[in-house]
Amino acid sequence: MRLRNIKGAQDIIAVSDYVINIEKYKNKPIFNNSNKIEIEIGMGKGDFIIEKAKQNPHINFIGIEKYATVLVSVVKKLEKEKLDNLKIINLDASNITDFFSKNISKIYLNFSDPWPKKKHANRRLTSKIFLDKYAKIFKDDYIIEMKTDNQKLFEYSLQTLSQNGYYFDLVSLDLYANLNEDNIATEYEKKFVKLGNKIYKLVAIHKVDEKIKN
Amino acid sequence: MRLRNIKGAQDIIAVSDYVINIEKYKNKPIFNNSNKIEIEIGMGKGDFIIEKAKQNPHINFIGIEKYATVLVSVVKKLEKEKLDNLKIINLDASNITDFFSKNISKIYLNFSDPWPKKKHANRRLTSKIFLDKYAKIFKDDYIIEMKTDNQKLFEYSLQTLSQNGYYFDLVSLDLYANLNEDNIATEYEKKFVKLGNKIYKLVAIHKVDEKIKN
Repeated sequence: MRLRNIKGAQDIIAVSDYVINIEKYKNKPIFNNSNKIEIEIGMGKGDFIIEKAKQNPHINFIGIEKYATVLVSVVKKLEKEKLDNLKIINLDASNITDFFSKNISKIYLNFSDPWPKKKHANRRLTSKIFLDKYAKIFKDDYIIEMKTDNQKLFEYSLQTLSQNGYYFDLVSLDLYANLNEDNIATEYEKKFVKLGNKIYKLVAIHKVDEKIKN
Repeated sequence: MRLRNIKGAQDIIAVSDYVINIEKYKNKPIFNNSNKIEIEIGMGKGDFIIEKAKQNPHINFIGIEKYATVLVSVVKKLEKEKLDNLKIINLDASNITDFFSKNISKIYLNFSDPWPKKKHANRRLTSKIFLDKYAKIFKDDYIIEMKTDNQKLFEYSLQTLSQNGYYFDLVSLDLYANLNEDNIATEYEKKFVKLGNKIYKLVAIHKVDEKIKN
């Protein structure tokens, strides 16, 4: 995403009730209920997770975004909504285990950076390094839902996920050929579909194996 | 494949040294050595497995084809070659466990019938029914190499294989975008590539689990 520098981005997001203060909430309950928590890593402008939260009031959602500048626009959108099942957090995915611990039920990865160069493969959000981090924050079953228009990233993810104990409940190589009504398009997705790009989707599930869970 | 009826097909293939006589060889060694055995289910006119056998003299190959009529043309090709590491057999894949038993190292599925209707899903060569049969004829590691131009069959196979303990060593959603020199094209493949169809390929591996092996 091309970033516009917004002066005082950190200050703006610091005062929003929608934004999780990392120091304050570390190892403390984020929501006042015991509903499931699902997270989106790299929420961007937030269209996907805001709509998810609206449609699923009995699930809690947390959007994760590493760029404070991007979060400012999400905060502005959220101030107009009254959603008590959605929070956002300014966090780099690499540090996800510093904040979360075995309380996540599902991870959404939408149009993540493909990091096309082989030497950057470890930065892809479906690399073994990241899958090992997710294993530390998942609660019961591990579920990862991923959408991308990047063929190479999708091929790579089918390999790494299957190599790390996940099986596929869904694989679509052309999501819009049989679009389900419940699909929520991200900002990128709308743009890419207009360009005629194919959208790939997978739902990967891992039955918890106690050996790897701890 | 559209089949031409060839009179006396059964008689022609019965006398070829390349064709395995099922009754005679049942539970007996097919080759005079202990090299690995790899099979292609649905070999069609045989271009793929004949080339494989030529390139890999230290591996034994068996081509399986249910239509005797198709095998006649393979037999004619083979009579011109002198390949002692290739045999063919007139067998329906459904009956594969009647003939083979824990002696197969790899299975090739090239452009298998996609059986697009849901009610015929069990006939697809990557349905659970078939994967269970393969588990009974595989020796050590199970390896399945599959190519197809059928998107739906490929999506389905990624799901069923991962759901039955296989992981993917390779997934390509456009084989000809980065074609490897060692690719051997089947007759269908050449035709589909000319038509501009994308070719999908996967290599699935299953480390033997003793519980399911027996």
